[in-house]
Amino acid sequence: MLSLPFPLAASSSRDFDLPFAMLVIFGSAKLLGEVCIRFRLPALVGEIVAGILVGPSVLGWIAPSAFLHSLSDLGVMFLLFTVGLEVRAAELKRVGGPATLVALGGVVLPFLAGWGILTFSGARQAEACFAGAAFVATSVGITAQVLQKGGLLHLRASRIILVAAVIDDILGLIVLAVVSGMSRGKLDYWDIGLTAVFSIGLFVLAIQFGSRAMERAVPKVRRTMQGSEADFAIAITVLFALALMALYAGVAAIVGAFLAGVVLAGSLDERAENFTHGATELLVPFFLVGIGLNLDLSTLRNPATLALAAIVLVAAVVTKIVGCGLGALRFGRVDAMRIGVGMVPRGEVGMVVAQLGLTLGVVSQSLYAITVFMAVGTTIVAPPLLAWAFRGADTRPSDSELPSIG
Amino acid sequence: MLSLPFPLAASSSRDFDLPFAMLVIFGSAKLLGEVCIRFRLPALVGEIVAGILVGPSVLGWIAPSAFLHSLSDLGVMFLLFTVGLEVRAAELKRVGGPATLVALGGVVLPFLAGWGILTFSGARQAEACFAGAAFVATSVGITAQVLQKGGLLHLRASRIILVAAVIDDILGLIVLAVVSGMSRGKLDYWDIGLTAVFSIGLFVLAIQFGSRAMERAVPKVRRTMQGSEADFAIAITVLFALALMALYAGVAAIVGAFLAGVVLAGSLDERAENFTHGATELLVPFFLVGIGLNLDLSTLRNPATLALAAIVLVAAVVTKIVGCGLGALRFGRVDAMRIGVGMVPRGEVGMVVAQLGLTLGVVSQSLYAITVFMAVGTTIVAPPLLAWAFRGADTRPSDSELPSIG
Repeated sequence: MLSLPFPLAASSSRDFDLPFAMLVIFGSAKLLGEVCIRFRLPALVGEIVAGILVGPSVLGWIAPSAFLHSLSDLGVMFLLFTVGLEVRAAELKRVGGPATLVALGGVVLPFLAGWGILTFSGARQAEACFAGAAFVATSVGITAQVLQKGGLLHLRASRIILVAAVIDDILGLIVLAVVSGMSRGKLDYWDIGLTAVFSIGLFVLAIQFGSRAMERAVPKVRRTMQGSEADFAIAITVLFALALMALYAGVAAIVGAFLAGVVLAGSLDERAENFTHGATELLVPFFLVGIGLNLDLSTLRNPATLALAAIVLVAAVVTKIVGCGLGALRFGRVDAMRIGVGMVPRGEVGMVVAQLGLTLGVVSQSLYAITVFMAVGTTIVAPPLLAWAFRGADTRPSDSELPSIG
Repeated sequence: MLSLPFPLAASSSRDFDLPFAMLVIFGSAKLLGEVCIRFRLPALVGEIVAGILVGPSVLGWIAPSAFLHSLSDLGVMFLLFTVGLEVRAAELKRVGGPATLVALGGVVLPFLAGWGILTFSGARQAEACFAGAAFVATSVGITAQVLQKGGLLHLRASRIILVAAVIDDILGLIVLAVVSGMSRGKLDYWDIGLTAVFSIGLFVLAIQFGSRAMERAVPKVRRTMQGSEADFAIAITVLFALALMALYAGVAAIVGAFLAGVVLAGSLDERAENFTHGATELLVPFFLVGIGLNLDLSTLRNPATLALAAIVLVAAVVTKIVGCGLGALRFGRVDAMRIGVGMVPRGEVGMVVAQLGLTLGVVSQSLYAITVFMAVGTTIVAPPLLAWAFRGADTRPSDSELPSIG
């Protein structure tokens, strides 16, 4: 049905919805981002708060929708792609060992904390295990954004965070597979092994051979294509092809997007990099605002739920810092703290785990609300913590500020 | 419900859908665009054909969806915005008179043709009037893309086409209002007058005062904003604010997007223009592929329907060229032909009219299919006709190829 606000207008209400949502989300994100900068907070805290403000919790102007969710997914894929463009494969290989230790520490301790708190609060074992799994999964988008905007991506701690986040994603999926297999009463070791092999294989292949393959392929494609913007077409195609391959291998699409950036780093012309940054700059606010939109504060009105949510949030932050920090202790306390803080945000990955548990009938509505609160909460506290942990670090203009680097 | 292709994957099938759709649509558009260039056809013909190919008519890989429709809407808004960025308000004012004549000629003749053919084929008066209204509305997106890619936007004929398309949009809405009012049995002159005043007022205000207002406002906002990318934030905000205002005034969102570009022309820094072109380059294929996706060839299997569709298509092309060409005859036959051909594509505007008629119960399913065929058909034949009409014209690298112009 078309509803016509003016009798003349050949427009449906959906026609209004689109520019309205674009204007409100983009505008409020930029506005509150500016406000946060004045209070010496990272701008993206303001963009997440903008989502809480315009979303169902406060003003109710914008409701979460499939369209906004997809734009948010696109935003975080483009974000990780541009982060990958600033990272060389060789640098990732160098930090593989320490990053694995960091990821392991960041999986074991948070899992035990999530499982322990829920067990202590009287939940069933299956639910406690799911809470543990939701505690595990780091979502690197927020940290990547802070490091990129702050010109910190070249630091050793940043490289370790990025690689540890990829390994964490693989480990997190294995934990989730075990937990959901147990809740179904059967554990399929064959499938778990297969996914582990596929996801690790994709990562190793991309790091080992991807860059050199692209260095040869991109100039050839550029010469062959007669249409304009060949490099940008390559960038977008590789980005979504690797995102799809990552999903088929069992890991998150953003892992593929990151790898796509890594294999294309140094191969694209400046114009394509600028174009990619433009698409990213348009779409990332939808990722950040989307985090706030999904936070439904009304579910936390019950004081007992609120208290449990607060304990969960503190535990989620502390155990990730300590777990990852222990894995990175040999780089000194400053870098260990930076790496630990960088792994704190759980973001959309934690929410996906909770949603899966809800679908399987293992996770209660109240634990679901608590997990979403924890996922959003860790994402909001991380940027100020990162700003503090990286104070005095050697900053360098990122590619997105100064496109001629590299 | 989550369906898990791999038992481990914490991903729903929707997670796969997004990168799959992005990869298939963007990739097939670029691929078939390249093929068309080899056959000396404009690339965008290939992008539309890609939509027919991957859509329900042939391969069935991609179904039209609300998400893709929204991306397509965003694509055509960004396209008209970047076209506006290459046009100065003063140049538009200069061609206001002739453009009005062109628009009038392009409204009267096609309306009579649409009405006449349907009356002759035995349709009711209300349905024949709706067919006439669907014949009227030019959709300038395709022409704008051809002129921009071909470096032809600086020509007088191009300026006249752009302004005539805006006036045509206003006239088309008035025709539609009269026709749908008649089909409802009442004509609200007050509302028709109001929309005419609002839409013309918005146009005149933007052209007359918008540019100077932005020349003053943009540097101020730029100095005030401490976050990065101030100019890009301004661009996106003004784009969607004016799109929304255009909708409220009763005209299409793309008219607002075009005006946003015109008022910001010359005020944005090069970086913001590059970013805007990046977002456009990402989104425009979804507009072009979307046109092909919406063409359901199976509705035209009936020979009588197919014959009527062919007659309608030829009449739609010829009457628009003749009607607009007559209005531009004083610029000589070459420019009159260029302008007439530029106004041929009906695109999504014709479809919206047919859909409104369907909703009101005035337009039959078969006329709806014919109108969609006409809208897509005029859009596919226009680019080769434009390439022919503008052969030998003085081309100039467009802003999107050479960002330092202006």
